[in-house]
Amino acid sequence: MEDRWQECMDFAVSIARKAGSVVCAALKEDVSIMVKSSPADLVTATDQKVEEMIISSIKEKYPSHSFIGEESVAAGAGSTLTDNPTWIIDPIDGTTNFVHRFPFVAVSIGFAVNKQVEFGVVYSCVEDKMYTGRKGKGSFCNGQKLQVSGQKDITKSMIITELGSNRNPEVIKTVLSNMERLLCIPIHGIRAVGTAAVNMCLVATGGADAYYEMGLHCWDMAAASVIVTEAGGTILDATGGLFDLMSCRIISASSREIAERIAKELQIIPLERDDGKSTN
Amino acid sequence: MEDRWQECMDFAVSIARKAGSVVCAALKEDVSIMVKSSPADLVTATDQKVEEMIISSIKEKYPSHSFIGEESVAAGAGSTLTDNPTWIIDPIDGTTNFVHRFPFVAVSIGFAVNKQVEFGVVYSCVEDKMYTGRKGKGSFCNGQKLQVSGQKDITKSMIITELGSNRNPEVIKTVLSNMERLLCIPIHGIRAVGTAAVNMCLVATGGADAYYEMGLHCWDMAAASVIVTEAGGTILDATGGLFDLMSCRIISASSREIAERIAKELQIIPLERDDGKSTN
Repeated sequence: MEDRWQECMDFAVSIARKAGSVVCAALKEDVSIMVKSSPADLVTATDQKVEEMIISSIKEKYPSHSFIGEESVAAGAGSTLTDNPTWIIDPIDGTTNFVHRFPFVAVSIGFAVNKQVEFGVVYSCVEDKMYTGRKGKGSFCNGQKLQVSGQKDITKSMIITELGSNRNPEVIKTVLSNMERLLCIPIHGIRAVGTAAVNMCLVATGGADAYYEMGLHCWDMAAASVIVTEAGGTILDATGGLFDLMSCRIISASSREIAERIAKELQIIPLERDDGKSTN
Repeated sequence: MEDRWQECMDFAVSIARKAGSVVCAALKEDVSIMVKSSPADLVTATDQKVEEMIISSIKEKYPSHSFIGEESVAAGAGSTLTDNPTWIIDPIDGTTNFVHRFPFVAVSIGFAVNKQVEFGVVYSCVEDKMYTGRKGKGSFCNGQKLQVSGQKDITKSMIITELGSNRNPEVIKTVLSNMERLLCIPIHGIRAVGTAAVNMCLVATGGADAYYEMGLHCWDMAAASVIVTEAGGTILDATGGLFDLMSCRIISASSREIAERIAKELQIIPLERDDGKSTN
Protein backbone atom coordinates (compact mmCIF):
# COMPACT_ATOMS: atom_id res chain seq x y z
CA MET A 1 0.00 0.00 0.00
CA GLU A 2 1.30 3.37 -0.93
CA ASP A 3 2.10 5.66 2.02
CA ARG A 4 0.10 8.80 1.43
CA TRP A 5 2.19 10.93 3.76
CA GLN A 6 5.68 9.66 2.99
CA GLU A 7 6.39 12.58 0.69
CA CYS A 8 5.41 15.01 3.46
CA MET A 9 7.69 13.19 5.88
CA ASP A 10 10.65 13.31 3.49
CA PHE A 11 10.02 17.01 3.09
CA ALA A 12 9.86 17.46 6.89
CA VAL A 13 13.25 15.77 7.28
CA SER A 14 14.86 18.00 4.69
CA ILE A 15 13.36 21.17 6.14
CA ALA A 16 14.28 20.17 9.72
CA ARG A 17 17.88 19.69 8.63
CA LYS A 18 17.90 23.08 6.91
CA ALA A 19 16.31 24.76 9.95
CA GLY A 20 18.80 22.99 12.24
CA SER A 21 21.72 24.40 10.30
CA VAL A 22 20.29 27.92 10.75
CA VAL A 23 19.90 27.26 14.50
CA CYS A 24 23.45 25.92 14.79
CA ALA A 25 24.86 28.89 12.88
CA ALA A 26 22.96 31.26 15.19
CA LEU A 27 24.57 29.58 18.22
CA LYS A 28 27.86 31.06 17.09
CA GLU A 29 26.50 34.60 17.13
CA ASP A 30 25.25 36.93 19.86
CA VAL A 31 21.79 35.94 21.01
CA SER A 32 19.34 38.69 21.96
CA ILE A 33 16.66 37.45 24.32
CA MET A 34 13.04 38.43 24.85
CA VAL A 35 10.94 37.32 27.81
CA LYS A 36 7.51 35.65 27.37
CA SER A 37 5.29 34.39 30.23
CA SER A 38 7.93 34.43 33.01
CA PRO A 39 11.56 35.49 33.53
CA ALA A 40 12.46 31.92 32.58
CA ASP A 41 10.24 31.69 29.47
CA LEU A 42 12.48 33.05 26.73
CA VAL A 43 12.30 33.61 23.00
CA THR A 44 14.83 34.88 20.48
CA ALA A 45 14.74 36.33 16.99
CA THR A 46 16.05 32.96 15.75
CA ASP A 47 12.94 31.11 17.02
CA GLN A 48 10.76 33.48 15.02
CA LYS A 49 12.95 33.49 11.89
CA VAL A 50 13.25 29.69 11.80
CA GLU A 51 9.52 29.12 12.29
CA GLU A 52 8.73 31.54 9.47
CA MET A 53 11.23 29.77 7.24
CA ILE A 54 9.72 26.34 7.99
CA ILE A 55 6.10 27.41 7.59
CA SER A 56 6.64 29.38 4.38
CA SER A 57 8.51 26.47 2.76
CA ILE A 58 5.75 24.01 3.66
CA LYS A 59 2.96 26.41 2.65
CA GLU A 60 4.46 26.79 -0.78
CA LYS A 61 4.40 23.02 -1.32
CA TYR A 62 1.17 22.22 0.56
CA PRO A 63 -1.00 25.35 0.40
CA SER A 64 -4.14 23.61 1.72
CA HIS A 65 -2.49 22.33 4.94
CA SER A 66 -2.91 23.89 8.39
CA PHE A 67 -0.24 24.98 10.84
CA ILE A 68 0.25 25.27 14.59
CA GLY A 69 3.60 26.85 15.39
CA GLU A 70 4.93 28.02 18.74
CA GLU A 71 5.83 31.50 17.58
CA SER A 72 2.73 31.97 15.39
CA VAL A 73 0.56 31.12 18.41
CA ALA A 74 2.59 33.54 20.55
CA ALA A 75 1.86 36.17 17.88
CA GLY A 76 -1.89 35.52 18.12
CA ALA A 77 -2.63 32.63 15.73
CA GLY A 78 -4.98 29.95 17.04
CA SER A 79 -3.91 26.46 18.05
CA THR A 80 -7.03 24.43 17.42
CA LEU A 81 -6.39 21.05 15.89
CA THR A 82 -8.83 20.20 13.09
CA ASP A 83 -9.08 17.11 10.87
CA ASN A 84 -7.17 18.92 8.11
CA PRO A 85 -3.53 17.84 7.59
CA THR A 86 -1.74 19.97 10.19
CA TRP A 87 1.93 20.68 10.72
CA ILE A 88 2.77 21.21 14.39
CA ILE A 89 6.06 23.05 14.69
CA ASP A 90 8.54 24.06 17.36
CA PRO A 91 11.40 25.86 15.59
CA ILE A 92 13.69 25.63 18.65
CA ASP A 93 12.68 23.18 21.35
CA GLY A 94 14.96 24.14 24.23
CA THR A 95 15.13 27.91 23.74
CA THR A 96 16.71 28.40 27.19
CA ASN A 97 19.40 25.89 26.20
CA PHE A 98 19.84 27.78 22.94
CA VAL A 99 20.26 31.08 24.81
CA HIS A 100 22.92 29.50 27.03
CA ARG A 101 24.48 27.38 24.30
CA PHE A 102 23.74 24.31 26.38
CA PRO A 103 24.19 21.75 23.61
CA PHE A 104 20.66 20.32 23.32
CA VAL A 105 18.31 22.15 21.00
CA ALA A 106 15.93 20.58 18.53
CA VAL A 107 13.76 21.45 15.59
CA SER A 108 10.48 19.60 16.07
CA ILE A 109 7.99 18.99 13.25
CA GLY A 110 4.91 16.85 13.81
CA PHE A 111 2.19 16.12 11.26
CA ALA A 112 -1.37 15.20 12.19
CA VAL A 113 -4.33 14.13 10.06
CA ASN A 114 -7.79 13.62 11.57
CA LYS A 115 -6.19 14.71 14.86
CA GLN A 116 -3.82 11.71 14.80
CA VAL A 117 -0.07 12.28 14.56
CA GLU A 118 1.04 10.50 11.40
CA PHE A 119 4.77 11.22 11.67
CA GLY A 120 7.26 13.21 13.70
CA VAL A 121 10.71 14.59 12.98
CA VAL A 122 13.00 15.84 15.77
CA TYR A 123 16.40 17.14 14.70
CA SER A 124 18.79 17.61 17.64
CA CYS A 125 21.05 19.86 15.64
CA VAL A 126 24.15 20.32 17.85
CA GLU A 127 24.43 16.54 18.21
CA ASP A 128 23.44 16.13 14.54
CA LYS A 129 20.88 13.48 15.46
CA MET A 130 17.85 13.16 13.18
CA TYR A 131 15.03 11.30 14.95
CA THR A 132 12.02 10.22 12.90
CA GLY A 133 8.88 8.22 13.63
CA ARG A 134 6.17 7.18 11.16
CA LYS A 135 2.93 5.66 12.44
CA GLY A 136 3.06 1.90 11.89
CA LYS A 137 6.59 1.95 10.49
CA GLY A 138 8.93 2.36 13.45
CA SER A 139 11.20 5.13 14.58
CA PHE A 140 14.83 5.82 13.78
CA CYS A 141 17.81 7.95 14.72
CA ASN A 142 20.20 8.67 11.86
CA GLY A 143 18.83 5.57 10.15
CA GLN A 144 19.22 3.26 13.15
CA LYS A 145 16.01 1.64 14.43
CA LEU A 146 14.98 2.70 17.94
CA GLN A 147 13.67 0.52 20.73
CA VAL A 148 12.68 1.59 24.25
CA SER A 149 14.39 -0.13 27.20
CA GLY A 150 11.30 -2.20 27.99
CA GLN A 151 11.93 -1.66 31.71
CA LYS A 152 8.81 -2.36 33.80
CA ASP A 153 10.25 -2.07 37.32
CA ILE A 154 10.10 1.52 38.55
CA THR A 155 12.78 0.86 41.20
CA LYS A 156 15.26 0.14 38.41
CA SER A 157 14.26 3.11 36.28
CA MET A 158 15.89 6.36 35.28
CA ILE A 159 13.40 9.13 34.65
CA ILE A 160 13.73 12.44 32.83
CA THR A 161 11.70 15.49 33.75
CA GLU A 162 12.18 19.26 33.90
CA LEU A 163 11.90 21.98 36.50
CA GLY A 164 10.09 24.00 33.81
CA SER A 165 9.84 27.72 33.19
CA ASN A 166 6.92 28.50 35.51
CA ARG A 167 8.19 30.54 38.46
CA ASN A 168 4.95 30.53 40.46
CA PRO A 169 6.07 29.32 43.91
CA GLU A 170 3.12 26.92 44.24
CA VAL A 171 3.86 25.32 40.87
CA ILE A 172 7.55 24.95 41.79
CA LYS A 173 6.53 23.27 45.05
CA THR A 174 4.39 20.74 43.18
CA VAL A 175 7.09 20.06 40.58
CA LEU A 176 9.61 19.36 43.35
CA SER A 177 7.28 17.29 45.50
CA ASN A 178 6.51 15.09 42.49
CA MET A 179 10.26 14.52 42.09
CA GLU A 180 10.54 13.79 45.82
CA ARG A 181 7.84 11.12 45.69
CA LEU A 182 9.51 9.40 42.75
CA LEU A 183 13.01 9.54 44.30
CA CYS A 184 11.66 7.98 47.50
CA ILE A 185 10.15 4.93 45.74
CA PRO A 186 13.24 4.74 45.14
CA ILE A 187 14.24 5.09 41.49
CA HIS A 188 17.77 5.08 40.04
CA GLY A 189 17.79 8.76 39.19
CA ILE A 190 16.34 11.83 37.54
CA ARG A 191 17.84 13.72 34.61
CA ALA A 192 16.89 17.03 32.97
CA VAL A 193 18.33 17.94 29.59
CA GLY A 194 16.14 20.97 28.87
CA THR A 195 14.16 19.99 25.78
CA ALA A 196 10.96 17.96 25.82
CA ALA A 197 11.53 16.62 22.32
CA VAL A 198 15.06 15.37 23.01
CA ASN A 199 13.96 13.99 26.40
CA MET A 200 11.28 11.93 24.67
CA CYS A 201 13.72 10.79 21.98
CA LEU A 202 16.06 9.62 24.78
CA VAL A 203 13.22 7.43 26.06
CA ALA A 204 12.77 6.10 22.51
CA THR A 205 16.47 5.13 22.36
CA GLY A 206 16.23 3.23 25.66
CA GLY A 207 18.65 5.69 27.33
CA ALA A 208 15.99 6.59 29.90
CA ASP A 209 12.92 4.68 31.04
CA ALA A 210 10.45 7.55 31.19
CA TYR A 211 9.91 11.26 30.76
CA TYR A 212 7.05 13.24 32.23
CA GLU A 213 6.24 16.91 32.36
CA MET A 214 3.32 19.28 32.85
CA GLY A 215 3.24 22.75 31.31
CA LEU A 216 4.23 21.72 27.80
CA HIS A 217 2.53 22.65 24.55
CA CYS A 218 1.39 20.55 21.61
CA TRP A 219 4.43 21.64 19.54
CA ASP A 220 6.77 20.26 22.23
CA MET A 221 5.11 16.84 22.18
CA ALA A 222 3.55 16.12 18.77
CA ALA A 223 6.59 14.96 16.78
CA ALA A 224 8.31 13.07 19.61
CA SER A 225 5.11 11.33 20.75
CA VAL A 226 5.02 9.14 17.63
CA ILE A 227 8.80 8.56 17.88
CA VAL A 228 8.26 7.09 21.36
CA THR A 229 5.25 4.94 20.51
CA GLU A 230 6.88 3.62 17.34
CA ALA A 231 9.91 2.62 19.44
CA GLY A 232 7.57 0.47 21.53
CA GLY A 233 6.91 3.00 24.28
CA THR A 234 3.71 4.11 25.96
CA ILE A 235 2.29 7.62 26.05
CA LEU A 236 -0.24 8.63 28.70
CA ASP A 237 -1.69 11.79 30.11
CA ALA A 238 -0.04 12.77 33.41
CA THR A 239 -3.30 11.74 35.12
CA GLY A 240 -2.82 8.18 33.81
CA GLY A 241 -5.63 8.60 31.29
CA LEU A 242 -5.44 8.73 27.50
CA PHE A 243 -2.81 11.07 26.06
CA ASP A 244 -4.30 14.30 24.76
CA LEU A 245 -2.05 16.45 22.57
CA MET A 246 -3.81 19.61 23.76
CA SER A 247 -3.70 18.90 27.51
CA CYS A 248 -0.17 20.33 28.02
CA ARG A 249 1.05 17.27 29.96
CA ILE A 250 2.57 13.90 29.19
CA ILE A 251 4.11 10.72 30.51
CA SER A 252 6.13 8.84 27.92
CA ALA A 253 7.62 5.58 29.10
CA SER A 254 9.29 2.35 28.17
CA SER A 255 6.24 0.39 29.36
CA ARG A 256 2.65 0.89 30.44
CA GLU A 257 3.62 -0.35 33.93
CA ILE A 258 6.14 2.46 34.43
CA ALA A 259 3.85 5.09 32.92
CA GLU A 260 0.97 4.12 35.23
CA ARG A 261 3.26 3.95 38.28
CA ILE A 262 4.49 7.48 37.60
CA ALA A 263 0.91 8.72 37.10
CA LYS A 264 0.05 7.29 40.53
CA GLU A 265 2.70 9.51 42.16
CA LEU A 266 2.05 12.76 40.29
CA GLN A 267 0.14 15.63 41.77
CA ILE A 268 -1.47 17.40 38.80
CA ILE A 269 -0.62 21.05 38.12
CA PRO A 270 -3.69 23.00 36.92
CA LEU A 271 -3.03 24.21 33.37
CA GLU A 272 -4.91 25.92 30.59
CA ARG A 273 -5.31 23.70 27.54
CA ASP A 274 -3.63 24.63 24.25
CA ASP A 275 -6.98 24.65 22.42
CA GLY A 276 -8.70 26.86 25.00
CA LYS A 277 -11.31 24.17 25.83
CA SER A 278 -12.23 23.87 29.49
CA THR A 279 -10.25 21.33 31.49
CA ASN A 280 -11.94 18.44 33.20
CA MET B 1 60.60 26.70 31.45
CA GLU B 2 60.12 23.02 30.89
CA ASP B 3 56.82 21.60 32.09
CA ARG B 4 57.68 18.84 34.50
CA TRP B 5 54.29 17.18 34.31
CA GLN B 6 53.55 17.50 30.58
CA GLU B 7 54.65 13.93 29.91
CA CYS B 8 52.27 12.67 32.62
CA MET B 9 49.44 14.69 31.10
CA ASP B 10 50.07 13.32 27.60
CA PHE B 11 50.04 9.85 29.10
CA ALA B 12 46.78 10.60 30.93
CA VAL B 13 45.13 11.67 27.66
CA SER B 14 46.20 8.49 25.88
CA ILE B 15 45.08 6.24 28.73
CA ALA B 16 41.74 8.09 29.10
CA ARG B 17 41.07 7.55 25.41
CA LYS B 18 41.91 3.85 25.70
CA ALA B 19 39.74 3.50 28.82
CA GLY B 20 36.91 5.36 27.07
CA SER B 21 36.95 2.92 24.19
CA VAL B 22 36.58 0.03 26.67
CA VAL B 23 33.66 1.85 28.34
CA CYS B 24 31.97 2.54 24.98
CA ALA B 25 32.42 -1.08 23.89
CA ALA B 26 30.89 -2.26 27.19
CA LEU B 27 27.83 -0.06 26.53
CA LYS B 28 26.97 -2.40 23.65
CA GLU B 29 26.93 -5.46 25.94
CA ASP B 30 24.75 -6.59 28.83
CA VAL B 31 25.57 -4.68 31.98
CA SER B 32 25.40 -6.51 35.30
CA ILE B 33 24.87 -4.16 38.20
CA MET B 34 25.93 -4.25 41.84
CA VAL B 35 24.58 -1.92 44.52
CA LYS B 36 26.89 0.13 46.79
CA SER B 37 25.71 2.59 49.48
CA SER B 38 22.06 2.90 48.37
CA PRO B 39 19.68 1.40 45.76
CA ALA B 40 20.75 4.30 43.52
CA ASP B 41 24.52 3.99 44.09
CA LEU B 42 25.57 1.47 41.46
CA VAL B 43 28.76 -0.14 40.27
CA THR B 44 29.51 -2.56 37.44
CA ALA B 45 32.30 -4.94 36.54
CA THR B 46 33.36 -2.41 33.89
CA ASP B 47 34.08 0.28 36.52
CA GLN B 48 36.41 -2.14 38.29
CA LYS B 49 38.06 -3.49 35.14
CA VAL B 50 38.70 -0.02 33.69
CA GLU B 51 40.14 1.35 36.94
CA GLU B 52 42.49 -1.60 37.20
CA MET B 53 43.57 -1.09 33.61
CA ILE B 54 44.26 2.63 34.19
CA ILE B 55 46.13 2.17 37.46
CA SER B 56 48.28 -0.73 36.28
CA SER B 57 49.32 1.17 33.13
CA ILE B 58 50.30 4.25 35.14
CA LYS B 59 52.06 2.22 37.85
CA GLU B 60 54.22 0.55 35.24
CA LYS B 61 55.40 3.92 33.96
CA TYR B 62 55.47 5.84 37.27
CA PRO B 63 56.07 3.27 40.01
CA SER B 64 56.71 5.89 42.71
CA HIS B 65 53.41 7.73 42.24
CA SER B 66 50.34 7.39 44.47
CA PHE B 67 46.74 6.61 43.51
CA ILE B 68 43.25 7.37 44.71
CA GLY B 69 40.70 5.49 42.63
CA GLU B 70 36.96 5.18 43.19
CA GLU B 71 36.88 1.40 43.00
CA SER B 72 40.16 0.87 44.91
CA VAL B 73 38.72 2.97 47.75
CA ALA B 74 35.48 0.98 47.62
CA ALA B 75 37.64 -2.15 47.95
CA GLY B 76 39.32 -0.79 51.09
CA ALA B 77 42.26 1.33 49.88
CA GLY B 78 42.75 4.68 51.63
CA SER B 79 42.01 8.06 50.08
CA THR B 80 44.40 10.36 51.90
CA LEU B 81 46.03 12.95 49.69
CA THR B 82 49.76 13.35 50.40
CA ASP B 83 52.36 15.60 48.77
CA ASN B 84 53.50 12.74 46.53
CA PRO B 85 52.42 12.93 42.88
CA THR B 86 48.94 11.38 43.03
CA TRP B 87 46.62 10.18 40.29
CA ILE B 88 42.96 10.63 41.23
CA ILE B 89 40.80 8.40 39.07
CA ASP B 90 37.15 7.80 38.32
CA PRO B 91 37.00 5.05 35.68
CA ILE B 92 33.32 5.78 34.89
CA ASP B 93 31.91 9.06 36.13
CA GLY B 94 28.19 8.59 35.61
CA THR B 95 27.82 4.89 36.41
CA THR B 96 24.02 5.18 36.61
CA ASN B 97 24.07 6.74 33.14
CA PHE B 98 26.32 3.90 31.98
CA VAL B 99 23.90 1.30 33.37
CA HIS B 100 21.01 2.95 31.51
CA ARG B 101 23.04 3.83 28.41
CA PHE B 102 22.15 7.48 28.98
CA PRO B 103 24.78 8.95 26.70
CA PHE B 104 26.97 10.86 29.19
CA VAL B 105 29.74 8.87 30.82
CA ALA B 106 33.28 10.05 31.38
CA VAL B 107 36.70 8.74 32.32
CA SER B 108 38.16 11.23 34.80
CA ILE B 109 41.88 11.41 35.60
CA GLY B 110 43.25 14.15 37.85
CA PHE B 111 46.85 14.57 38.92
CA ALA B 112 47.92 16.37 42.10
CA VAL B 113 51.36 17.28 43.46
CA ASN B 114 51.78 18.86 46.90
CA LYS B 115 47.99 18.52 47.18
CA GLN B 116 47.48 20.87 44.21
CA VAL B 117 45.78 19.58 41.06
CA GLU B 118 48.33 20.08 38.27
CA PHE B 119 46.20 18.81 35.39
CA GLY B 120 42.91 17.10 34.68
CA VAL B 121 41.63 14.96 31.82
CA VAL B 122 37.92 14.19 31.35
CA TYR B 123 37.00 12.02 28.39
CA SER B 124 33.25 12.02 27.67
CA CYS B 125 33.49 8.90 25.57
CA VAL B 126 30.03 8.56 23.95
CA GLU B 127 30.27 12.15 22.74
CA ASP B 128 33.99 11.63 21.94
CA LYS B 129 34.90 14.86 23.74
CA MET B 130 38.35 15.02 25.32
CA TYR B 131 38.50 17.81 27.90
CA THR B 132 41.89 18.78 29.35
CA GLY B 133 43.11 21.45 31.75
CA ARG B 134 46.72 22.18 32.76
CA LYS B 135 47.41 24.59 35.61
CA GLY B 136 48.54 27.92 34.14
CA LYS B 137 48.05 26.80 30.55
CA GLY B 138 44.32 26.86 29.88
CA SER B 139 41.75 24.19 29.19
CA PHE B 140 40.61 22.65 25.96
CA CYS B 141 37.98 20.38 24.42
CA ASN B 142 39.19 18.41 21.40
CA GLY B 143 41.88 21.05 20.96
CA GLN B 144 39.53 24.03 21.16
CA LYS B 145 40.26 26.52 23.97
CA LEU B 146 37.53 26.78 26.60
CA GLN B 147 36.14 29.91 28.21
CA VAL B 148 33.37 30.13 30.81
CA SER B 149 30.34 32.31 30.03
CA GLY B 150 31.50 35.05 32.39
CA GLN B 151 27.89 35.55 33.54
CA LYS B 152 27.70 37.39 36.88
CA ASP B 153 23.94 37.92 37.15
CA ILE B 154 22.28 34.96 38.87
CA THR B 155 18.86 35.89 37.45
CA LYS B 156 20.23 35.28 33.95
CA SER B 157 21.97 32.03 34.84
CA MET B 158 21.47 28.39 34.00
CA ILE B 159 22.67 26.06 36.71
CA ILE B 160 23.48 22.34 36.67
CA THR B 161 23.09 20.14 39.72
CA GLU B 162 22.05 16.58 40.49
CA LEU B 163 19.44 14.86 42.62
CA GLY B 164 22.24 12.50 43.69
CA SER B 165 22.22 8.87 44.78
CA ASN B 166 21.46 9.39 48.47
CA ARG B 167 17.92 8.14 49.19
CA ASN B 168 17.74 9.33 52.80
CA PRO B 169 14.45 11.30 52.88
CA GLU B 170 16.01 14.17 54.84
CA VAL B 171 18.85 14.53 52.35
CA ILE B 172 16.39 14.46 49.43
CA LYS B 173 14.36 17.21 51.12
CA THR B 174 17.46 19.42 51.45
CA VAL B 175 18.55 18.77 47.85
CA LEU B 176 15.10 19.80 46.61
CA SER B 177 14.73 22.81 48.87
CA ASN B 178 18.09 24.10 47.64
CA MET B 179 16.75 23.83 44.09
CA GLU B 180 13.56 25.58 45.14
CA ARG B 181 15.42 28.54 46.63
CA LEU B 182 17.48 28.95 43.46
CA LEU B 183 14.47 28.65 41.13
CA CYS B 184 12.63 31.31 43.13
CA ILE B 185 15.44 33.91 42.81
CA PRO B 186 14.53 33.35 39.83
CA ILE B 187 17.13 31.74 37.58
CA HIS B 188 16.72 30.67 33.94
CA GLY B 189 16.78 26.97 34.68
CA ILE B 190 18.30 23.85 36.18
CA ARG B 191 19.76 20.94 34.26
CA ALA B 192 21.02 17.52 35.39
CA VAL B 193 23.10 15.38 33.05
CA GLY B 194 24.19 12.73 35.55
CA THR B 195 27.98 13.10 35.69
CA ALA B 196 29.83 15.59 37.86
CA ALA B 197 32.82 15.68 35.54
CA VAL B 198 30.78 16.42 32.40
CA ASN B 199 28.63 18.93 34.32
CA MET B 200 31.78 20.85 35.31
CA CYS B 201 33.14 20.65 31.77
CA LEU B 202 29.85 22.15 30.52
CA VAL B 203 30.49 25.11 32.86
CA ALA B 204 34.00 25.36 31.39
CA THR B 205 32.56 25.54 27.84
CA GLY B 206 30.19 28.36 28.83
CA GLY B 207 27.16 26.10 28.16
CA ALA B 208 26.02 26.54 31.78
CA ASP B 209 26.83 29.24 34.32
CA ALA B 210 27.35 27.05 37.36
CA TYR B 211 27.30 23.54 38.77
CA TYR B 212 27.02 22.66 42.44
CA GLU B 213 26.62 19.41 44.30
CA MET B 214 27.14 17.88 47.71
CA GLY B 215 27.87 14.19 48.21
CA LEU B 216 30.61 13.90 45.60
CA HIS B 217 34.06 12.38 46.03
CA CYS B 218 37.50 13.67 45.16
CA TRP B 219 37.65 11.48 42.03
CA ASP B 220 34.48 13.15 40.71
CA MET B 221 35.93 16.63 41.09
CA ALA B 222 39.74 16.57 40.81
CA ALA B 223 40.23 16.50 37.04
CA ALA B 224 37.32 18.80 36.15
CA SER B 225 38.18 21.37 38.86
CA VAL B 226 41.30 22.51 36.98
CA ILE B 227 39.40 22.41 33.66
CA VAL B 228 36.93 24.93 35.11
CA THR B 229 39.49 27.25 36.72
CA GLU B 230 41.69 27.22 33.60
CA ALA B 231 38.64 28.23 31.54
CA GLY B 232 38.32 31.31 33.75
CA GLY B 233 35.82 29.88 36.23
CA THR B 234 35.67 29.94 40.00
CA ILE B 235 35.62 26.94 42.33
CA LEU B 236 34.34 27.26 45.89
CA ASP B 237 33.24 24.98 48.66
CA ALA B 238 29.44 24.76 48.90
CA THR B 239 29.68 26.85 52.08
CA GLY B 240 31.25 29.68 50.06
CA GLY B 241 34.68 29.05 51.59
CA LEU B 242 37.81 27.76 49.89
CA PHE B 243 37.39 24.66 47.76
CA ASP B 244 38.62 21.51 49.49
CA LEU B 245 39.05 18.43 47.30
CA MET B 246 38.30 16.14 50.25
CA SER B 247 35.14 17.93 51.46
CA CYS B 248 32.76 16.09 49.06
CA ARG B 249 31.07 19.30 47.88
CA ILE B 250 31.63 21.95 45.24
CA ILE B 251 30.35 25.03 43.51
CA SER B 252 31.97 25.66 40.14
CA ALA B 253 30.85 28.78 38.37
CA SER B 254 31.46 31.22 35.55
CA SER B 255 32.23 33.98 38.09
CA ARG B 256 32.93 34.50 41.78
CA GLU B 257 29.68 36.51 42.00
CA ILE B 258 27.53 33.58 40.87
CA ALA B 259 29.43 31.08 43.03
CA GLU B 260 28.98 33.20 46.14
CA ARG B 261 25.32 33.88 45.37
CA ILE B 262 24.66 30.13 45.10
CA ALA B 263 26.54 29.49 48.35
CA LYS B 264 24.27 32.00 50.06
CA GLU B 265 21.20 29.93 49.12
CA LEU B 266 22.52 26.44 49.89
CA GLN B 267 21.63 24.56 53.00
CA ILE B 268 24.61 22.30 53.71
CA ILE B 269 24.13 18.53 53.81
CA PRO B 270 26.26 16.90 56.57
CA LEU B 271 28.78 14.59 54.89
CA GLU B 272 31.77 12.52 55.89
CA ARG B 273 34.99 13.74 54.30
CA ASP B 274 36.87 11.57 51.80
CA ASP B 275 40.02 11.63 53.94
CA GLY B 276 38.22 10.67 57.16
CA LYS B 277 39.23 13.91 58.92
CA SER B 278 36.56 15.44 61.12
CA THR B 279 34.36 18.08 59.48
CA ASN B 280 34.24 21.63 60.77
